[in-house]
Amino acid sequence: MTKRRLVILAEGRLDVFGAKTAVSIVRYRKEEVVAIIDSVNAGEALESIIGVGKGIPIVCSIEETLKLKPTALLIGIAPPGGLLPVEWRKHIIDALQNNLHIISGLHIHLGDDREFCKLAHDRKLEIWDVRKPPEDIPLGTGKAKETKTLRILTVGSDCNIGKMVTSIEITNTARKRGINACFVATGQTGIMIEGSGIAVDHVISDFISGAAEKLVLDRSQYQLLSIEGQGAVVHPAYSGVTVGLLHGSAPQGLILCHQPTRKTLRHFPNFPVLPLPYLIEVYEKLSQPLHPCKVLGVSLNCFGMSDSNALQEIQKVEKETKLPATDPIKFGVDKFVDVIRPLLP
Amino acid sequence: MTKRRLVILAEGRLDVFGAKTAVSIVRYRKEEVVAIIDSVNAGEALESIIGVGKGIPIVCSIEETLKLKPTALLIGIAPPGGLLPVEWRKHIIDALQNNLHIISGLHIHLGDDREFCKLAHDRKLEIWDVRKPPEDIPLGTGKAKETKTLRILTVGSDCNIGKMVTSIEITNTARKRGINACFVATGQTGIMIEGSGIAVDHVISDFISGAAEKLVLDRSQYQLLSIEGQGAVVHPAYSGVTVGLLHGSAPQGLILCHQPTRKTLRHFPNFPVLPLPYLIEVYEKLSQPLHPCKVLGVSLNCFGMSDSNALQEIQKVEKETKLPATDPIKFGVDKFVDVIRPLLP
Repeated sequence: MTKRRLVILAEGRLDVFGAKTAVSIVRYRKEEVVAIIDSVNAGEALESIIGVGKGIPIVCSIEETLKLKPTALLIGIAPPGGLLPVEWRKHIIDALQNNLHIISGLHIHLGDDREFCKLAHDRKLEIWDVRKPPEDIPLGTGKAKETKTLRILTVGSDCNIGKMVTSIEITNTARKRGINACFVATGQTGIMIEGSGIAVDHVISDFISGAAEKLVLDRSQYQLLSIEGQGAVVHPAYSGVTVGLLHGSAPQGLILCHQPTRKTLRHFPNFPVLPLPYLIEVYEKLSQPLHPCKVLGVSLNCFGMSDSNALQEIQKVEKETKLPATDPIKFGVDKFVDVIRPLLP
Repeated sequence: MTKRRLVILAEGRLDVFGAKTAVSIVRYRKEEVVAIIDSVNAGEALESIIGVGKGIPIVCSIEETLKLKPTALLIGIAPPGGLLPVEWRKHIIDALQNNLHIISGLHIHLGDDREFCKLAHDRKLEIWDVRKPPEDIPLGTGKAKETKTLRILTVGSDCNIGKMVTSIEITNTARKRGINACFVATGQTGIMIEGSGIAVDHVISDFISGAAEKLVLDRSQYQLLSIEGQGAVVHPAYSGVTVGLLHGSAPQGLILCHQPTRKTLRHFPNFPVLPLPYLIEVYEKLSQPLHPCKVLGVSLNCFGMSDSNALQEIQKVEKETKLPATDPIKFGVDKFVDVIRPLLP
């Protein structure tokens, strides 16, 4: 699937919050997206709905996309309740019957569905369940730190706070500035964007560090690995994945991601978001005994704030942490690449 | 399997290092063990080989144990290389044909073996693969901290250092002193001893905290939960499981387990064991934002040291950490129960 021409299925959920995967694919792989399927908004301008994607048509069916010569259908949404709605089955079957591969980040594996599987097999098509981990993940050995590549991991004050976006923006900006950089995807949307990676939250827990280590060792030819973080180090549900990823990938540098307007953990209103200096101390104390590691910058998700309020917040955080801070979407990440560049091998 | 009469399979691996599971079952459930199968040592005195188990016969076959009316065969060893040796298959088939249940902590699930499965099904016998997690593990919610029970978790400076033994000894001593205590097993051997639990290192990584939380919520009627820890907080392979278990079980108190003679992490000679004050700080800083939590004592594994050297080490550690320290096997854990008792609900 090297030259992908993607149709994104976003039926009935096409908005900034409902279709996070679709929005991210359009933001970072716009040149690969030929159409969106959503009968509710068919004929409307995509950009006016999700803020990105100018010129990409919204249509009702696979049939309408065929003249655009698509190669794959990408499932851009998650069904409420976990079961696959009947309307979606129809789109997936239509896609397979028209020789499109399927890319899915759903919890359920579409490749295990007998009807989909038979259709794909008969036509030699691939059903790529991106959350399904590879079968050859080893236990962690601590060897990532022996690679010469510079490993930069995003970490967070909470989940869903901007780690993937920050890691991709660092990769893109580094490349523009002549650095041989690779985005290392560790979650479903990142994997769909990059075309490779491991969903570390879906491996058996004994193998989290091993999965992170494998991602690094398999990419050691790059100067810079910009590794997508997961979860948060102090979190009632997801800290295990965070710490396993931290130790397995052995980063020399961390970028701490934070949303100034968020006061309590998402979905956990009884747990406050912790002060940045506390988080910096915990992340560094956890890492430094295993490999040299410093927090290098703070990435602020100022979604919904005015530019001037965002700038004020950035200055406040820079003063508090004595680290460079920026909002990657509003102001780019040159500040981070400035501190990363001198550390390159 | 309430009144178990266990035959332990330890064929060819019956020593303190090769048969850790067998040794622990004999140590903590001696009254349930009717025989050991190991043709190499058949007829010898078990106590002279593994230090515990006086009076338990070592025999060559299931047939020889039948007069002792066993109810289950427990696999007390792990096969080198992961595949099941032919001799072991024979013992398992013999056991099933003689109406014994099977208890196994192997990575491979014996219940998935077609021949074993059919034999068990025909005779209504259970094949209990203790590492197989239950299917209803939820995501973590942070609710363990709302239970009234006192939750004490063992943590470590490394893996395989005495966390299970310490948690069991605390449970037993607490019970002797009139406390309604429950040992909460999180690993295969602990689960075999207790008869219940979840192997948290075998759940999908997103669900580590949820598994730990479920273990606590399902046992909230007890005054004291003595929770078996896993891994170590700063570790190149297993820290994810450690931290997920820490946050999911929300302990008010931790017992830090350590082996004075161990200078580098087991199987990781390039990674030193960290100083106890550093580990105490990291464990407390990770926990305290989510729930009140203090390290209450240090459990020292002084295996191979003389009693007087062990006492010297205990005094040294007590001075260094200002916490009560003991070796549970050599000197018991009354010191820990002394500091736990005032915290009881």
